[in-house]
Amino acid sequence: MGIKTREDYLAALRELRPNIHKLGELIEDVTTHPATKRTVESHALNYDAANDPELEDIYTTTSMFTGERILRWNSMMQSSDDVIVNMKMKRQNYRRTGSCTGGVCVGWNAQNVMWAVTHDIDQELGTDYQQRLKNWILTAQSKGLTVAGALTDAKGDRSLRPSQQPDPDTNLRATEVREDGIVIRGAKLMICGTAASQEIFLLPGGSYGEADQDYAVACVVPRDIEGLTIVETTHPSDRRELEETADVEVPDTGITQAFLLFEDVFVPRERVFMCKEYKYTGKLIQFFTANYRACIGACVGGQGDVMIGASVLLARANGLSARTFRNKLEDMSINNQVTYGLGVGACAMGFRHPSGSWFADPLTANANKVMVATLPYEVKRLTQEIGGGIAETGCMPSYKDFVNPEYGHLVQKYIKAGPSSAESRFKAARLAEWLTVGAGIPGCMHGGGSPDGARLMVRFTTPIEDYVNYAKEIMGIEEEIPEPQKPRRK
Amino acid sequence: MGIKTREDYLAALRELRPNIHKLGELIEDVTTHPATKRTVESHALNYDAANDPELEDIYTTTSMFTGERILRWNSMMQSSDDVIVNMKMKRQNYRRTGSCTGGVCVGWNAQNVMWAVTHDIDQELGTDYQQRLKNWILTAQSKGLTVAGALTDAKGDRSLRPSQQPDPDTNLRATEVREDGIVIRGAKLMICGTAASQEIFLLPGGSYGEADQDYAVACVVPRDIEGLTIVETTHPSDRRELEETADVEVPDTGITQAFLLFEDVFVPRERVFMCKEYKYTGKLIQFFTANYRACIGACVGGQGDVMIGASVLLARANGLSARTFRNKLEDMSINNQVTYGLGVGACAMGFRHPSGSWFADPLTANANKVMVATLPYEVKRLTQEIGGGIAETGCMPSYKDFVNPEYGHLVQKYIKAGPSSAESRFKAARLAEWLTVGAGIPGCMHGGGSPDGARLMVRFTTPIEDYVNYAKEIMGIEEEIPEPQKPRRK
Amino acid sequence: MGIKTREDYLAALRELRPNIHKLGELIEDVTTHPATKRTVESHALNYDAANDPELEDIYTTTSMFTGERILRWNSMMQSSDDVIVNMKMKRQNYRRTGSCTGGVCVGWNAQNVMWAVTHDIDQELGTDYQQRLKNWILTAQSKGLTVAGALTDAKGDRSLRPSQQPDPDTNLRATEVREDGIVIRGAKLMICGTAASQEIFLLPGGSYGEADQDYAVACVVPRDIEGLTIVETTHPSDRRELEETADVEVPDTGITQAFLLFEDVFVPRERVFMCKEYKYTGKLIQFFTANYRACIGACVGGQGDVMIGASVLLARANGLSARTFRNKLEDMSINNQVTYGLGVGACAMGFRHPSGSWFADPLTANANKVMVATLPYEVKRLTQEIGGGIAETGCMPSYKDFVNPEYGHLVQKYIKAGPSSAESRFKAARLAEWLTVGAGIPGCMHGGGSPDGARLMVRFTTPIEDYVNYAKEIMGIEEEIPEPQKPRRK
Amino acid sequence: MGIKTREDYLAALRELRPNIHKLGELIEDVTTHPATKRTVESHALNYDAANDPELEDIYTTTSMFTGERILRWNSMMQSSDDVIVNMKMKRQNYRRTGSCTGGVCVGWNAQNVMWAVTHDIDQELGTDYQQRLKNWILTAQSKGLTVAGALTDAKGDRSLRPSQQPDPDTNLRATEVREDGIVIRGAKLMICGTAASQEIFLLPGGSYGEADQDYAVACVVPRDIEGLTIVETTHPSDRRELEETADVEVPDTGITQAFLLFEDVFVPRERVFMCKEYKYTGKLIQFFTANYRACIGACVGGQGDVMIGASVLLARANGLSARTFRNKLEDMSINNQVTYGLGVGACAMGFRHPSGSWFADPLTANANKVMVATLPYEVKRLTQEIGGGIAETGCMPSYKDFVNPEYGHLVQKYIKAGPSSAESRFKAARLAEWLTVGAGIPGCMHGGGSPDGARLMVRFTTPIEDYVNYAKEIMGIEEEIPEPQKPRRK
Repeated sequence: MGIKTREDYLAALRELRPNIHKLGELIEDVTTHPATKRTVESHALNYDAANDPELEDIYTTTSMFTGERILRWNSMMQSSDDVIVNMKMKRQNYRRTGSCTGGVCVGWNAQNVMWAVTHDIDQELGTDYQQRLKNWILTAQSKGLTVAGALTDAKGDRSLRPSQQPDPDTNLRATEVREDGIVIRGAKLMICGTAASQEIFLLPGGSYGEADQDYAVACVVPRDIEGLTIVETTHPSDRRELEETADVEVPDTGITQAFLLFEDVFVPRERVFMCKEYKYTGKLIQFFTANYRACIGACVGGQGDVMIGASVLLARANGLSARTFRNKLEDMSINNQVTYGLGVGACAMGFRHPSGSWFADPLTANANKVMVATLPYEVKRLTQEIGGGIAETGCMPSYKDFVNPEYGHLVQKYIKAGPSSAESRFKAARLAEWLTVGAGIPGCMHGGGSPDGARLMVRFTTPIEDYVNYAKEIMGIEEEIPEPQKPRRK
Repeated sequence: MGIKTREDYLAALRELRPNIHKLGELIEDVTTHPATKRTVESHALNYDAANDPELEDIYTTTSMFTGERILRWNSMMQSSDDVIVNMKMKRQNYRRTGSCTGGVCVGWNAQNVMWAVTHDIDQELGTDYQQRLKNWILTAQSKGLTVAGALTDAKGDRSLRPSQQPDPDTNLRATEVREDGIVIRGAKLMICGTAASQEIFLLPGGSYGEADQDYAVACVVPRDIEGLTIVETTHPSDRRELEETADVEVPDTGITQAFLLFEDVFVPRERVFMCKEYKYTGKLIQFFTANYRACIGACVGGQGDVMIGASVLLARANGLSARTFRNKLEDMSINNQVTYGLGVGACAMGFRHPSGSWFADPLTANANKVMVATLPYEVKRLTQEIGGGIAETGCMPSYKDFVNPEYGHLVQKYIKAGPSSAESRFKAARLAEWLTVGAGIPGCMHGGGSPDGARLMVRFTTPIEDYVNYAKEIMGIEEEIPEPQKPRRK
Repeated sequence: MGIKTREDYLAALRELRPNIHKLGELIEDVTTHPATKRTVESHALNYDAANDPELEDIYTTTSMFTGERILRWNSMMQSSDDVIVNMKMKRQNYRRTGSCTGGVCVGWNAQNVMWAVTHDIDQELGTDYQQRLKNWILTAQSKGLTVAGALTDAKGDRSLRPSQQPDPDTNLRATEVREDGIVIRGAKLMICGTAASQEIFLLPGGSYGEADQDYAVACVVPRDIEGLTIVETTHPSDRRELEETADVEVPDTGITQAFLLFEDVFVPRERVFMCKEYKYTGKLIQFFTANYRACIGACVGGQGDVMIGASVLLARANGLSARTFRNKLEDMSINNQVTYGLGVGACAMGFRHPSGSWFADPLTANANKVMVATLPYEVKRLTQEIGGGIAETGCMPSYKDFVNPEYGHLVQKYIKAGPSSAESRFKAARLAEWLTVGAGIPGCMHGGGSPDGARLMVRFTTPIEDYVNYAKEIMGIEEEIPEPQKPRRK
Repeated sequence: MGIKTREDYLAALRELRPNIHKLGELIEDVTTHPATKRTVESHALNYDAANDPELEDIYTTTSMFTGERILRWNSMMQSSDDVIVNMKMKRQNYRRTGSCTGGVCVGWNAQNVMWAVTHDIDQELGTDYQQRLKNWILTAQSKGLTVAGALTDAKGDRSLRPSQQPDPDTNLRATEVREDGIVIRGAKLMICGTAASQEIFLLPGGSYGEADQDYAVACVVPRDIEGLTIVETTHPSDRRELEETADVEVPDTGITQAFLLFEDVFVPRERVFMCKEYKYTGKLIQFFTANYRACIGACVGGQGDVMIGASVLLARANGLSARTFRNKLEDMSINNQVTYGLGVGACAMGFRHPSGSWFADPLTANANKVMVATLPYEVKRLTQEIGGGIAETGCMPSYKDFVNPEYGHLVQKYIKAGPSSAESRFKAARLAEWLTVGAGIPGCMHGGGSPDGARLMVRFTTPIEDYVNYAKEIMGIEEEIPEPQKPRRK
């Protein structure tokens, strides 16, 4: 059968029904439209890598079902090493594209999470969810699919549960369950890599109780399924992408985040892997976030690596040695490695679910999420500090001014600093801008849930009473010292 | 005579020769062009405030020369309180506009710095610089001018001094000194508020030695002087300003940063306040940075106040009480107050120059600059954390999608969260975006010099040997313990 | 009359009744006992300074009552500058002693706070408290008293108010009010500088309601008053003080913190400045903490200066130039200056109470308290980092080993590092130990209240709704967006 | 043969020649002397654990040489999992003792490092070092030895190499090489756990060149070898250990750090594993620090766990729920888990040396060392913040005062706070003191080398030029942009 190539992938995308809009317009061909072609290119690089002898160990593996060579992101993750390779691939992707390639991330994670969850549901309820999932995975492996994943609902009023919302559509739900499938309605927001994906894996966005059972839906749909309207969001500097000038910041790669609007979409039975089994949503979220919050350390680490590169380029373009900033560069590298290494540590301390799926240690993974929501901001700050004023806010005239026949020569004359060309300094500054305040920011603070959600998990998974007992034993305190139960002073 | 009004100000701007470009085009009227009208509005608010009984104490004062009521930003700062009012005005301006109003900042500082520097030059060299300056100040006071200020040169290769640069124009210099004035050539980059200013105060960008004497030039020029071409830089999201939709982020106010390109500009003698007296450039830079780096604490404090406001708005729009985030809001408030209060402390510990000008304590002001380059980044991070994914990267469809006849109703349906309207949540998220990764970032990290420059000043002004002596005296160590002088190991 | 001298002061201390205990023993003479003589010496240095022409501007001033020259710490603080001199004196004291001289701090602050509070009580209730206070101040000024101050009660169960405690003595209270005075009972804990003080100013430890009115007591008592038992607390390394070897860490200066145990102590009427007027306790605490939390920035700044000195000494004693650590030394200096300068800023932004007393701006002062509870820890960490392993935990053999006849020469041989003597390196490391993990730590995190208490004040004094309005005005949001009032999801 | 027990261990220690001194006195029996018995107890707990069915999986393993059950700390580490168990044991030890058990740490690491180094030396030079080492390991396994390890030399002038020092003994060296062994002279300083160890593994303290070849010595010696004098250092509060009261802080466990003074000590040939092969010292240090700096994350993590326990105990003893401080407790838990999980990550990313020894990834391990030198300080700070003033500096009267017949009842009355006893609160506060500013601080900042040393390794192992290339590739920059080579401006 063989590993799919860039050409196969682009051809597959072009066959999809146009249902993606941006800035009020329908995009006919995602592979050529300036608003989407860059994220498509970011994903096409994965197919290149899978066919590159130097990188194929990361980007391909053997199917545990068929024994055939498959794309890594269609594989099952059944050991610590499997998840760590996921991290390696993420870091590598960020290093090559500078941003998020969501089409080889959430869908992959979702398939492994659902492998465990369907196992548990089937065991208890006698359903056949895992078999349906396996069938789909086999297809995905054989077609070499790129699959976005979507958890985040519109959510509505954060103080109300899905079923309490004034508008029941606020969270995605099954409005009808039929013999041959289900009908879903609602929205999934800020979904990365949709424009570059062939399918979308949908998971419930939270842990639900009985009242919210309609919202306990997991399934996978073609990106162009009937009834699905996709609207791409804007990023700070993405208007420039439509201009096709050097202001685009990064010429070839890119990121998108989309609103997915489902208006009574029919999903056939064989693509549904959970429907109303609300009791399993808590586990689903925990499994999903454990691996997501471990692996995301590779994303911000990899983007941080590019920030180091951009910083050094700018220093040199300014006429300065990178050594001038060695303390700052060390800080950047340490921060990158903390989120990466801590994620790897979470994987190494993980556990194997009876289904075979491997999940990272929750305490460590959630501690990492808090780091991911903090350290990259310092790396960005340092990028701006090293780069100088020009990098801080991308504070340069536009490329149209750069090449203006009247005064463009002056703009260039004054942008040139060290021995390298004005153009290189311009580009390096645009890259720094893109990474720190431009359209390249992947949204890692809230991706995979908020840091406060992660802190909550840290609280729940820290064995506080054990620690109290260690302290008591060291001190020889035998008295019981429980939590005070009395009323607080008024 | 009376305090000038918004109408006077706008009329004055409209009379200036068009010499500002953006995105390759000449701007005919800065008061109406979408690329500049917002910063003009930000500055017009100062004239409103000066005529507002509640705010006039801050925005106006009495001329020490004429005893007449004048605009605050045309006044002399001769006491700690005078500089502290400068800070109050800055914080207030940020609170009302969300960003930088550079036309009432650097020019004002420059005039006071030059009051001291010309005093010293005149005393030693018998020149008449201070009298020229006074004449210009009297005019500025009487006309109620808004005056940008410019120090930052193109700089070129950072490892070379101005006179060593391959291109001698890299830093602004006097190419000719005539009886009736001087001719200048070069560029000043990233100058805030130029488009909203009537004049521009030019100061040397560094501390120079004899070889660089041509670069020791201070003068003030009309913004539309012959030979000056101005090119406005781009900011991440500023393309939206041209669309005039709600994607603009902030509807009325704004910030600009410009490249000023001087091609043999003649500056008449009476507008020149330093020419070749290189020995005084060190003092000039120290005076300038002392006050600048103290007062900038008010800028980031004021912008941080708006971030608190935006965060609370978003929390509520999400259906959550601000109390949910009280720890984070406290952190934000503390950070804002640290940069503000430390700046005030630097002013209070300052000193009066023999000329009467008041300057902030250098050690404290430079310590504050380091805080300014650090703490606001945490405030931004917290804004994104509180605001949720929608605020992190402004991750919403564009306003064109928001009002799209086909699917706009769905976009709105899903953007609405808490009890307030979808439109308000949309706007609050745009504000958070603008303040943290959009076009509203004022560039405070490098404004007034880099944090590393400030650290250098901290090093020079910290009395290390005194501290060593305190330690020795406390310990009764009488032995001399000097810096090791021996060669390092190889 | 003249400014009192060290001799006057020591003589006065020797006349007091012995009522201070440490390690289970009564101390006969605080000026010679090794447990107390060092804090006495720290305070005696103030009298030296007051009689030193170079320092008298800081350490003395003119009485606003009598016009006579008095000790600074007996004076009224009625302007921003008065409070800033308080800070100067604190920083200077820390630089000369390495730690806290509490006898010239809290009592001084208390007298000024009570000047304002008695003014308000007298105005409303027609009492004569301020006159009593004035009489006492006049005596204090004439005698040149050193006066400790005490707010912190034993507190008991932190979730209960004073009157709710199982033991009513848990907080200091008036058990009897008589014509000629009051009887007090209870304890004040961790009071600095008691052993070096002639009198102790007692203030209520919190803001009280009617039920707790017995606890609303302010008065001043001689340190040796009948019924008062004082027990000095231990600090990590203070056992060494009894050995009188070079392990003492600092040879001459020191700090103490005491438990004051009041067993039905009679305080004569003229020394009582508040009794049961609970309504004024809130104001009292606010005034007290405002100035305390501003000025404490000088304490940690001054101690940080000595840490810089100790670090440089150790670097040189190790054979290294201080330049090796310049980044760290800059960080230390910046941290020291932030707490100092922010405190000065709080003073400069303060306000004058109708009584004449000057109080620092609460928001800024409380923000500073949070800095004081954070930044010095980083300075300590850096001291240990620069100093090396020997400084981290004072990791050296004892002085008894240093001079041991058998192997002492080896200990010395191996402690010597750079060109200076083994003895100097030993001493410098002991100083670093004392400042970072030894007996010299002054307890600034909780002194003047906890950082969480300060954060609470930050919350109350931050005008959140104003900030919301700024955000709304910038965005043109007209809709009301109040705090959500609905019930939380269950 | 069986796993050795506590009794075997204590008996073995008692047989050693007394050669340890503290405070000027010789310690006859380390198992009973108050200065050493606590660290001995800490180590005895390891033997208990090795014989405890619940813990034996961690504390014992199978010898790869003999297949017999052996103590874990005598084993070879030949896989990622082996090193991760080392970490688990470290964290567990800290949790049970509150501090460092150095006798099961450095010696163990040293034996594995030397397994690799001797392999390389033997391969190149045909020596038989590995066989000697294997013989010793077999003995250690069979005897169940506790083995301290020592790298840190006296070092002397930090700007000079060993052979350049005025005193050649400054670093430990071979003064004579004989047929039957070598003679060593010099000192190893601050060595943890010596008093509890039966033998000491000596390694060179740095990476040496030819001139310093005499200093390239690795060997293992009995702790009581002739010519070795040991002097235990003092810690801030360790004088209390001699009093045997409750002021001791922790009743049973403890830590020691010693100076080892070698005066022409003869080490027999079979115990020498490197002598003059200076070329291998660089590798030795890299291998040693890689594992040390990964695993030390478990030490500070485990001690931090006890800090969480002490904090919660204090909160409750104060009458407050731990929930009051949940944010702080989360921060503490996150910090603990970062150093632990990052260390595990470094192990998981490690590599197998041809000898079979497993070493952690250097970049990650060194990034962890920087975290270890930073995050625990914040955990300590939070312990003091949660604990209140009483915990900040252990600010309580001594236990002698606590039980004083006259006023002891008052001390107890006022120390009691919440529902638990005064004694428990006293103990909890002493524990907090011990962990944060007392004798329990293990010296992790400089243990295993300084953070600056680690940063240097971060710099060397970060592939900066690769990152530059990623940036260039993303931007399509083809121009060469090398480090500027020109002279700096003068």
